[in-house]
Amino acid sequence: MAATRAVVALRYENDALWAIDQTELPWREVELELRSAEDVAGAIRRLAIRGAPLIGVAAAYGVALELAHDSSQQSLNRAAALLREARPTAVNLSYAVDRVARAVQASRSDPHAAALTAALNEARAIEAEEQAASDAIAAHGAELLAGAPRILTHCNTGALAAPGRGTALAVIAELADRGTLEKAIATESRPLLQGARLTAYELAKLAIPHELIVDSAAAGLIAGGAVDAVIVGCDRVAANGDVANKVGTYGLALAADAASLPFVVAGPTSTIDPKTPTGAEIAIEERDPDEVRHAGGAQLTPDQTPCRNPAFDVTPAALVTALVTERGVLRPPFTS
Amino acid sequence: MAATRAVVALRYENDALWAIDQTELPWREVELELRSAEDVAGAIRRLAIRGAPLIGVAAAYGVALELAHDSSQQSLNRAAALLREARPTAVNLSYAVDRVARAVQASRSDPHAAALTAALNEARAIEAEEQAASDAIAAHGAELLAGAPRILTHCNTGALAAPGRGTALAVIAELADRGTLEKAIATESRPLLQGARLTAYELAKLAIPHELIVDSAAAGLIAGGAVDAVIVGCDRVAANGDVANKVGTYGLALAADAASLPFVVAGPTSTIDPKTPTGAEIAIEERDPDEVRHAGGAQLTPDQTPCRNPAFDVTPAALVTALVTERGVLRPPFTS
Repeated sequence: MAATRAVVALRYENDALWAIDQTELPWREVELELRSAEDVAGAIRRLAIRGAPLIGVAAAYGVALELAHDSSQQSLNRAAALLREARPTAVNLSYAVDRVARAVQASRSDPHAAALTAALNEARAIEAEEQAASDAIAAHGAELLAGAPRILTHCNTGALAAPGRGTALAVIAELADRGTLEKAIATESRPLLQGARLTAYELAKLAIPHELIVDSAAAGLIAGGAVDAVIVGCDRVAANGDVANKVGTYGLALAADAASLPFVVAGPTSTIDPKTPTGAEIAIEERDPDEVRHAGGAQLTPDQTPCRNPAFDVTPAALVTALVTERGVLRPPFTS
Repeated sequence: MAATRAVVALRYENDALWAIDQTELPWREVELELRSAEDVAGAIRRLAIRGAPLIGVAAAYGVALELAHDSSQQSLNRAAALLREARPTAVNLSYAVDRVARAVQASRSDPHAAALTAALNEARAIEAEEQAASDAIAAHGAELLAGAPRILTHCNTGALAAPGRGTALAVIAELADRGTLEKAIATESRPLLQGARLTAYELAKLAIPHELIVDSAAAGLIAGGAVDAVIVGCDRVAANGDVANKVGTYGLALAADAASLPFVVAGPTSTIDPKTPTGAEIAIEERDPDEVRHAGGAQLTPDQTPCRNPAFDVTPAALVTALVTERGVLRPPFTS
C-alpha cells in the first residue's frame, strides 16, 4: 500500500536514528542525528519527537542505539529506565521499551544471537505494526466518512505523531487520496499550537485544501453548516467509551452533537484501557501555566497572571459516534 | 454610588479627550491626548479605543472637539461622517454621533447658545447614561448570580469597553465588592486576546482573584465542576433572544447547558435589535486571516496557510438563561 505521507518523522539508517525536530516546524526542517538512549530521551523530553505512537518507536530504537555501544544487561536496564522516564504518562513509551527489553533478554539464551540485532529487529517490528495500524485506521475511517466532504480536526494526529500516516489526520489524508474530501478544517490547538504549526504543515505538504481557525471558532462554524464531520485522535479511552484527548475535544463533541454531525475518534486499540472503567477515573494532567502566558514565543499576559492549563479533557461516550481502530469501527461501550 | 472601576479608559479634561491606548495594554499605560475628530477616529480605527459603549462616547466627544476649532455646520457634518465611518458596524457609534449632531442643530435656533457647549453637554449626557447603565447592570446581575462563587467570562466587557464599569465584567466586579465572588475565570479570547491582555489587566487592578485559561479549556472545566456560572457581553441581540457575541460564546453556552449552569448575557437594552427577528439574520463579520496567523506579535503559522476568521458567533435563545440589562433581568423572547 503506497499511502501518501506528509513527512517521514523518524528513520533508522547508518546506525543512527534520524528524527525531524518538531520544535523547529513549520519554520525549519531539521533532522536530528540520535546515537544514544540519552540522545533519544532528550529529544522526547523537549518535544522534538512527540505523538504517542512516534515516541514509542523512537524509544524502541533508543534501546538498540545504546546496545550498540555496550550490549550488557546493565546497559539495557539503564537505557530502558532513561527512556521510560522521558515522558512518564505516555503508555506507548513503556510498552515499546518493555517489548524491546524482553526480546533482548530472550536472545541472551541463544549464544549465537546478538543483543543489538534482537533489539533492532523488535524496534523494526513495532514500527511496522504502527505503520500497518495507521493504514488500517485510515481505510476504516475513510469508509465511515466517505460522505463527509468538509472535515474538522483538532491538534496533530498525522505523520508527525506516528511512524505511519497517523490516526485522525490519516483518515483525512486517505479521503483526499480517494477524491471525496473537499477540505480539512484545522483548529490551531492552543496552547502549544500543534494545529497551526504541525497539522497546517502536513496538510500543505499533502496539497490538501484546508483552513486554519482559532479553537473557539469551531462551534460556530459547525452550527453554521460549514462542517460535515469532526474527527480527532485519543490519548486514552475508558472501558465505557469515554475519551480523554487534547483539551478542546469535548467542546467539539458538544458542537457536533448539537448539529447532529458525526463525531469520530480514531486511535489504535492499544489506547482503549479496560482497567479504567469511565472517564471520571482519568486524571487530567495540568501543565506549566507559562504555556498559557505565551504563544509562538510571544508573551500574551504578565508573568503574574494566574493561569490554569489542563492538557486534556474527557468526552463522554454518549457524544462519540464511533471509534475507528486498526481492527475496524467500534461503538461504545467497550466492555469485552 | 462609588463603584469600583479598574481604570478610567476615557476622560474629557482641559479641552482634550484623554484615552488609554488599549493597544499598549497590559504592557504600558499610555494616555493619548486627542484634540480633533480625526484624532478620535484614528484611535477608534486602530482599536486604541474599543468596546461598543466606549466608542460611542469617544465619538460624541470627537464631534465636540471639532466644533471647538470650527463651529460651522460644514465642520459638524464633516466630523460626524468621519466618526461614523471609523467602525461602520458599531451601532453605538452612529447613535452617539447622531445625538450630538441633533443637539447642535437644535442649539442653532437659539442665538445665545454655543454649538460647542451643546455638543459637550450632549456628550457628557451620553457618558453619564452609559455609566448609570453599567451600574444598574452590575446591580441586577449581582442579584441574579449571588449564589455563584466561581464565574467564567469571555473577551473583555469591563471598564476598558465602556465609560462605566462595563457589562459582564461589571457584574463580576460587583459580586467581588459584595464579597460573594471566590474567583473569576477568564478565557484568553483568541485571536485578539482581549481576555489575556485586557480582562486579566482589569481583574489584577481590582485585586479580584482570577485564573486565565485558553479558550478550549473552558468546556472541560465547566464539565469538571470548576465553574458555577458563565456571564458574557453581547454585540447584538435578536428579537427572539438569539445573541451575537465574540466568537467562542456559543461553545461556552453549550458547555454551560450540558452542565446545567446559568448562562447569562449582560448588555444595555440598546443592543436588543427588534428589527432582527432571529440570529439567522445576523451577518457574521469575517476579519483579516492574519489575526489567526499571529498572536501577541508572534507568527504562528506560515503566511500561505489559509485561515478563516469569524469575529462573532450566534448563541440560540434556548441556551440563554437570562439577559441582564440596565432595566432589569429579561428572559427571551423579547417580542415587545
